[in-house]
Amino acid sequence: MNRFYFDHNASTPVSQEVLEVLVPVLLEVHGNASSIHQDGQIARHRLESARRQVGDLLGCQAKELVFVSGGTEADNLAIFGAIGDGCHLITTAIEHPAVLNVCAQLGIEVTYVRVGSGGVVDPDDIRRAIRPTTRLISVMHVNNEIGTIQPIAEIAKIAKEAGILMHSDGVQAAGRIPVNVTALGVDLYSVSGHKMYAPKGVGALYVRKGLKLNPLLYGGRHEQQRRAGTENVPGAVAMGAAASWLAEHGESEAIRLAGLRDRLEQGILERVPSVSVNGGAPRISGTTNLCCEGIEGESMVIALDLRGFAVSSGSACSSGAVEPSHVLMAIGLTRDRAKSSLRFSLGRTNTEEQVDALIDAVAASATHLRKLSPEYVAHV
Amino acid sequence: MNRFYFDHNASTPVSQEVLEVLVPVLLEVHGNASSIHQDGQIARHRLESARRQVGDLLGCQAKELVFVSGGTEADNLAIFGAIGDGCHLITTAIEHPAVLNVCAQLGIEVTYVRVGSGGVVDPDDIRRAIRPTTRLISVMHVNNEIGTIQPIAEIAKIAKEAGILMHSDGVQAAGRIPVNVTALGVDLYSVSGHKMYAPKGVGALYVRKGLKLNPLLYGGRHEQQRRAGTENVPGAVAMGAAASWLAEHGESEAIRLAGLRDRLEQGILERVPSVSVNGGAPRISGTTNLCCEGIEGESMVIALDLRGFAVSSGSACSSGAVEPSHVLMAIGLTRDRAKSSLRFSLGRTNTEEQVDALIDAVAASATHLRKLSPEYVAHV
Repeated sequence: MNRFYFDHNASTPVSQEVLEVLVPVLLEVHGNASSIHQDGQIARHRLESARRQVGDLLGCQAKELVFVSGGTEADNLAIFGAIGDGCHLITTAIEHPAVLNVCAQLGIEVTYVRVGSGGVVDPDDIRRAIRPTTRLISVMHVNNEIGTIQPIAEIAKIAKEAGILMHSDGVQAAGRIPVNVTALGVDLYSVSGHKMYAPKGVGALYVRKGLKLNPLLYGGRHEQQRRAGTENVPGAVAMGAAASWLAEHGESEAIRLAGLRDRLEQGILERVPSVSVNGGAPRISGTTNLCCEGIEGESMVIALDLRGFAVSSGSACSSGAVEPSHVLMAIGLTRDRAKSSLRFSLGRTNTEEQVDALIDAVAASATHLRKLSPEYVAHV
Repeated sequence: MNRFYFDHNASTPVSQEVLEVLVPVLLEVHGNASSIHQDGQIARHRLESARRQVGDLLGCQAKELVFVSGGTEADNLAIFGAIGDGCHLITTAIEHPAVLNVCAQLGIEVTYVRVGSGGVVDPDDIRRAIRPTTRLISVMHVNNEIGTIQPIAEIAKIAKEAGILMHSDGVQAAGRIPVNVTALGVDLYSVSGHKMYAPKGVGALYVRKGLKLNPLLYGGRHEQQRRAGTENVPGAVAMGAAASWLAEHGESEAIRLAGLRDRLEQGILERVPSVSVNGGAPRISGTTNLCCEGIEGESMVIALDLRGFAVSSGSACSSGAVEPSHVLMAIGLTRDRAKSSLRFSLGRTNTEEQVDALIDAVAASATHLRKLSPEYVAHV
């Protein structure tokens, strides 16, 4: 059976362009980038080229980027690195666990700004939460579950006027919408390789020039003493190649994905009764989150999986959690509706034919599962 | 020009066996190991198989291993995770910066036990350093610069008797000498992928069953909530394959390397006047650290590099440091002698022919550099 992957917000496949660059590096570039001999210099050269490629995608200087092990480390480094004792932090109720669970560990006062049913934070709510002790505002650029785009430039402007640092988790944004961290005006910005067709195990944190940050990892003098540990040269090179492809093709791919996503969403809304879209606009092109009343989301994931389709209920990083999605609860869904929701996230491998097959599979699975569900009473 | 790599303690090339397993994973295993669909389950299955392979090499249960981004993160997690306020820590003067620079950040009292000229710590010195508040002892298994093997089992026994946790940085030991963490009696043990023919960007920390450790990275519920962040499945799989090869071939390879190392050391000692070996026994088979009087180590690295040989002066993780090696100073070398030292670290790609060519190159370079050096007065 063919398998069709509609879970690109959980992880993207490594693209052909990335593999073509990565495999020779794994084969041939074996030096430690901190070694002074030629093998080390070759590794260093590849690392710094990759840094420039990622910088070009994000609109910053290469030296403003710190390579890390992924989005979670980038978020942890940004927040732990910027925060001091006795200060106050503002974030939102719909952040990724890599932000929320760091906030819960800080031992300082944190304000979790709410969002409305659209899933977009109101900059005025951020402004109202500011206190004299506020040190950092951390708001994600794109939500991983519902795909909504947050008004980062406006919030960063508010932060700057108040002399507060601004971090944004851009893991789901980079390569999916145009990102220019300099124009956005943020101080810190997190990205992840495996959400942009590079492998797992690499990410980067943008740290605005001149900003002092406490490291999370101590050891050798790597990454301008901001992140110790032998540089992951193959990972960085892969991320650089992925960034280059996205810088060139990201916009046209986003338009293609918007078409596919709309086709998928419309198809399901037309074919399956009692389905509604969670969250509003603006949102990225490849994501839709749908509530299918009366159907346990996890049952639907399994039913679609058996038919060859990978989708998700909630985020992969929250799997194993018995609680319904904190994002869907934050935008006002009931527990039942939150638990009846599904995320479809599209990417480069998806085609119209796959979307049409997925619509059929969702319709068939919904009919089947609702027959089994004593709670569902059709509205049609 | 052929290039011959004698810097395996800085980083090892990715082996053919590892690549053969890794490339298909990069191509085909794209799921997030936390996703519940088949793509996720396949990734999870590969991750857990790799964990068993690493566990088999280290003599522990798979579930006692936490995959991390490398040796530095493993050391940081072990120490930051085990230490609390107001306690005391014992380590040695010859640890890697990933341990020493963490200790410098803890804000607690740390005893740095000295070593003699042999470069091996005396367990009685550790015993004498114990205080009622001592919480952790951290001693590396194999020194990265001089290759000396520390008496970890004896020290772990002392720690256990005193009710103190024992961590060992095993980055240069795993796969080079037999390691059985259970038999050693340690509570925490760090290993790194790129020192054992897997790629950079992956490592593991052994955490003895039942031991509670505070995480360094917060976010999703990965790695039994001990290390948040999407699991680096390709990296782990590569490390598993590397561990399997070493479990089978490590011992015979170590014997082969001992022969090559002795040939190299003898050859240089015979051909080049005023050379002496830094550190004593026991040491791992692939490493020798030599002081070439009157020659700046870095000049020798560059001279040998031009002749096609990669060697190092000091460790890669300390490069950029203007200070002489803290390890060589700790074993009693003068600043001048420490700065005149070279590390040769051998590995799988090295052959007898390469060693003979390296001896010739060292002899020729030494003669040339000493002619240029006004300070060197030959003893012969």
